[in-house]
Amino acid sequence: MSDVGGVTPTREGPLAIVCGGGSLPFAVADAAARGGRRVVLFAIRGHADPVRVDRYPHHWTVLGKLGWFFRTARREGCRDVVFIGSLVRPAIWQVRTDWKTLRLLPRIFGLFRGGDNHLLSGITKIFEEHGFRLVGAHEIAPEILMPEGLLGNLHPSERDQGDIAQGLALLSATGSFDIGQAVVIADTRVLAVEAAEGTDQMLARIADLRRNRRIVTAAHRGVLVKAAKRGQDRRVDLPSIGPHTIEGAERAGLAGIAIVAGSAIVAEPERIAAAADRAQLFIIGVRDETGDR
Amino acid sequence: MSDVGGVTPTREGPLAIVCGGGSLPFAVADAAARGGRRVVLFAIRGHADPVRVDRYPHHWTVLGKLGWFFRTARREGCRDVVFIGSLVRPAIWQVRTDWKTLRLLPRIFGLFRGGDNHLLSGITKIFEEHGFRLVGAHEIAPEILMPEGLLGNLHPSERDQGDIAQGLALLSATGSFDIGQAVVIADTRVLAVEAAEGTDQMLARIADLRRNRRIVTAAHRGVLVKAAKRGQDRRVDLPSIGPHTIEGAERAGLAGIAIVAGSAIVAEPERIAAAADRAQLFIIGVRDETGDR
Repeated sequence: MSDVGGVTPTREGPLAIVCGGGSLPFAVADAAARGGRRVVLFAIRGHADPVRVDRYPHHWTVLGKLGWFFRTARREGCRDVVFIGSLVRPAIWQVRTDWKTLRLLPRIFGLFRGGDNHLLSGITKIFEEHGFRLVGAHEIAPEILMPEGLLGNLHPSERDQGDIAQGLALLSATGSFDIGQAVVIADTRVLAVEAAEGTDQMLARIADLRRNRRIVTAAHRGVLVKAAKRGQDRRVDLPSIGPHTIEGAERAGLAGIAIVAGSAIVAEPERIAAAADRAQLFIIGVRDETGDR
Repeated sequence: MSDVGGVTPTREGPLAIVCGGGSLPFAVADAAARGGRRVVLFAIRGHADPVRVDRYPHHWTVLGKLGWFFRTARREGCRDVVFIGSLVRPAIWQVRTDWKTLRLLPRIFGLFRGGDNHLLSGITKIFEEHGFRLVGAHEIAPEILMPEGLLGNLHPSERDQGDIAQGLALLSATGSFDIGQAVVIADTRVLAVEAAEGTDQMLARIADLRRNRRIVTAAHRGVLVKAAKRGQDRRVDLPSIGPHTIEGAERAGLAGIAIVAGSAIVAEPERIAAAADRAQLFIIGVRDETGDR
């Protein structure tokens, strides 16, 4: 299976950044460049911002061209690869396979059958077998991680702190199962537990349940509590918090958002803090005392 | 608060059955009558089946008339009360309060703020304070509980048994939190965890995620695993499995349903077994070896 079995992955040499949408890819590119490292962007057409991509050496690409990517990144001298930025789930016609991808497809489809951890560790393995090393965006730019403490001007009430503690305890209990690590707690009642649907859809569900009076609590009550999965591969799978998370929490009528510090990427913290203040929500990075996450 | 503080609840005397829809109320009434006990039905208008209600001494009522219920049940000599049958969530205009109910409303609304266990233990307490004793339908008619073993003709594959074990383990981990005790597992992956939304809506979510290709598994894969909550008051809050559960599991593309034996009420087992066979789903009552539920 391996093309270049003998090559030992190394942190030396230029950094390949596979860029989705949003500003995060450029935060990472800037951090690497500041550290004196050459950066090569592999910008995904339709997702990455063309104006900002232009500032760095780059190649435009589409999803699914693994063979082309392996060849091109190798030619650029890259061994380390970062995946970063938003990817709206691609329609099938957007995926353009090449021969390498086709040959790997049965294996990739097999990976989709398991949980997310299984999928990601499988993809990591495929890259490693081809001589590449996946590097976490936050290893290059630690400043993109959720810090400890408040992000905006509001802070959790005593009641909210009770909900946060309850949420962390529940996440700790479910941590050994490969499921999305987010819950919503209001007045110590568990309103929702995230699994395959993802955080945004879970928040939309709370908004629906409130609208239909299936959940009856005072307005502006409850906390979204989010942590990294235990055993989660942080190189490729840190959740990220963006303006859509604030919007979802606002529509769900919550009081705020608590994130285990270091367990999520925060795209544009100033913009998010401002959005949270406007929505009258607190955002806090908390230390997780309950587990070894 | 108590009208008849001195009365000790007893199992003697006639049994008051507050009847919602479906056939379960009559399974309970028949069982009590077979045991030689007088039965008085309190049939909820628009829900209970008038033809079958007619076979027993009965009063028609509407939701919300607590004072009238307490007086009438007392006059009938009833101290034991069973709540049983389906209640489509009543529209607010269907609720007709009387003075007693109005006086209790602030307390009842307060109960709605907590988890389900909190709500139900509060309502139980209100009845006890008025000299009544809530009795579980299955205490009168144990035959309505999910038995151990297969209900229809299909049985779980080895893979399904792995999913069932995984589901029971997850339910055991979340058991100390007051949340809905149902999960969906497919190929050992956790697809959904139920909280405030209820089982039917959780199953609808899986169907959506499959339709949108957010979940990619083979068709006819995955198991709904259901247990009673730990500390759940079984007198008033045993979940029930009905034809709608089969329909939901079928639409969600599952292979079957596993229920901890004794932890759910099965309305019309023969009808459900037939529906499961038609939908090519297994239904099995399992023993829970993981906890003290």
